[in-house]
Amino acid sequence: MEEHRPVTIYDIAERLNLATSTISRALKDHHSISDKTIKKVKKTAEEMGFVPNTLAAGLRGNKTKTIGVLIPTITQPFLSSLISGIEVTARKSDYSVIIMQSHDSYEDEVNMTKSLYSSRVSGVICSLAMETKDTSHFQQFSNNNIPLVFVDRVPKGYNTFRVVIDNYTAGYKATKHLIDQGCKRIAHLTAGAEFGNLYKERKRGYLDALTDHGLPVKEEWIINLKAMTYDAGVKACQKLFGLKVPPDGLFAPGDILAVSAVQTAKKRGIKVPQDFAVIGFNNDPISEIIEPNISTITHPADKMGKAAANIVIDTIGSRKEEEAKEITFLNTEVLIRESSKRA
Amino acid sequence: MEEHRPVTIYDIAERLNLATSTISRALKDHHSISDKTIKKVKKTAEEMGFVPNTLAAGLRGNKTKTIGVLIPTITQPFLSSLISGIEVTARKSDYSVIIMQSHDSYEDEVNMTKSLYSSRVSGVICSLAMETKDTSHFQQFSNNNIPLVFVDRVPKGYNTFRVVIDNYTAGYKATKHLIDQGCKRIAHLTAGAEFGNLYKERKRGYLDALTDHGLPVKEEWIINLKAMTYDAGVKACQKLFGLKVPPDGLFAPGDILAVSAVQTAKKRGIKVPQDFAVIGFNNDPISEIIEPNISTITHPADKMGKAAANIVIDTIGSRKEEEAKEITFLNTEVLIRESSKRA
Repeated sequence: MEEHRPVTIYDIAERLNLATSTISRALKDHHSISDKTIKKVKKTAEEMGFVPNTLAAGLRGNKTKTIGVLIPTITQPFLSSLISGIEVTARKSDYSVIIMQSHDSYEDEVNMTKSLYSSRVSGVICSLAMETKDTSHFQQFSNNNIPLVFVDRVPKGYNTFRVVIDNYTAGYKATKHLIDQGCKRIAHLTAGAEFGNLYKERKRGYLDALTDHGLPVKEEWIINLKAMTYDAGVKACQKLFGLKVPPDGLFAPGDILAVSAVQTAKKRGIKVPQDFAVIGFNNDPISEIIEPNISTITHPADKMGKAAANIVIDTIGSRKEEEAKEITFLNTEVLIRESSKRA
Repeated sequence: MEEHRPVTIYDIAERLNLATSTISRALKDHHSISDKTIKKVKKTAEEMGFVPNTLAAGLRGNKTKTIGVLIPTITQPFLSSLISGIEVTARKSDYSVIIMQSHDSYEDEVNMTKSLYSSRVSGVICSLAMETKDTSHFQQFSNNNIPLVFVDRVPKGYNTFRVVIDNYTAGYKATKHLIDQGCKRIAHLTAGAEFGNLYKERKRGYLDALTDHGLPVKEEWIINLKAMTYDAGVKACQKLFGLKVPPDGLFAPGDILAVSAVQTAKKRGIKVPQDFAVIGFNNDPISEIIEPNISTITHPADKMGKAAANIVIDTIGSRKEEEAKEITFLNTEVLIRESSKRA
């Protein structure tokens, strides 16, 4: 088989006996070229199977019209929605999307930023790996005027764009909803400091909601999980239900945990929501299908992806001042379903 | 802010007063360069913030070390697992992954193949859009020795690599399992011809299993769906349960349909699996969590992604003969859970 040698503008120039500069301009509808020539060049280009080499164009302009997306994993529903939002928005402006999964490893994340940088991506959208504390590996983008947007899991004290939800307010709203339903002993599952700021903020919202409404905060109703998984949720809930004074409500900062709570309660004959009301987080597809279906906090993952992609695209080449690098807060809402609705 | 001008080997050569060819060789640990020089060059390169320009390297070699992945959508669990498998495998060989979503539109798919081709991807992995009948837009890859692998939803009569499961055998096994559990009147949900070969093959397996075991095939137990969604599943099952002779088993060619069947049955007071046994397809996360949890056919999506990526990487530059373009069949298994286990 012949080696792949694509048709170039040189080949078209030779065929038509015209200057390569004429071919190049004609293909771009340049005003200096007659309509007749433009038509002839385009027809010949098509016949010969010419495809503009965006890679070469990218190299000359030192950019590739690609957005690098660096996230912990693709398979989480929240993150696949995020990527989908990025891809749809990027495509509209002719940007391609390169995806990389850190699998929450700091070392992989560092290597992937190097790889994205040396691929000359136009911009980067990142949700940090769980392990990541130090963010100096992102400095290569900031130093070289490559737009960088952090989404959802974002670093503190790094001056770049961030698209997030207000996790404190969301945690407050979720807890307030349970209080409104008459819960008096509200439990919470959370994650250790190693999971970063996101769960910490949700917990802060939970604590303030309790305090503001004169409800007790009990250490034994707050359980730190090592992993935000179904099995970890089951174990934590068994512990909660075994307490002398068990909780009558739960704010779970993820839907899979809320599902595990509802199912563990049902198996023990505890009535949901009458004896135990539950609210989750994210509005994952499963929350709608499980019975009873799960009240949750909507998380605008798709919108977050779109917002991040738009920031990257708008910023490319625009020389925004440092001061302009803002935080975008997207809205969350309490979605009331069967697992918490008592009235 | 200064325009981004990356450090080049020329800058390093100037700083060290060495030839650019020496710098280039030293960075590649070339045997003609002394260890001392290699060390000095690498140290200076690092100090100056030099990053090898893989894009320029890609252009010289006329390839970019990227794999283009063109799939209907990212947000389906099966497809996000597929992408994850591709990404993990690609990364090991230093390939990047570009993803594009056709959203099952033929027109978008055509445009995306053009975009991938002009980006000079090293290879392409594609699961066809539902709308796609004609596949001539993929010829640009085949004609130019760019590896092309179709996965899961693959075209007929196109001579290139395909990684699939044997949908006929999987459909047969699923139905046989229900027969083994004592079901006598087995229903099936399927999709019209416009959904391509995949559902047709599963149905063929279902029909043959019934015939081989002397069970009746009744038109009213086979329902064609316009969309493979939860709501479509509920509607179809309500129809089935309203029949004079309702089915006592169901092979649903997707887990979300199986979930809708189980929940519709429960709401009508039909006991699952005693009065109505259900098996799904894909082993989506939800199938394990719903109660009763759902028997299903495992679908090796992650493995499929890995296999496809390996084929692309192994084929790049290898000049495989046309004859070598084979179909890879991955194995599926019956995963027995509560929704069908009667014994």
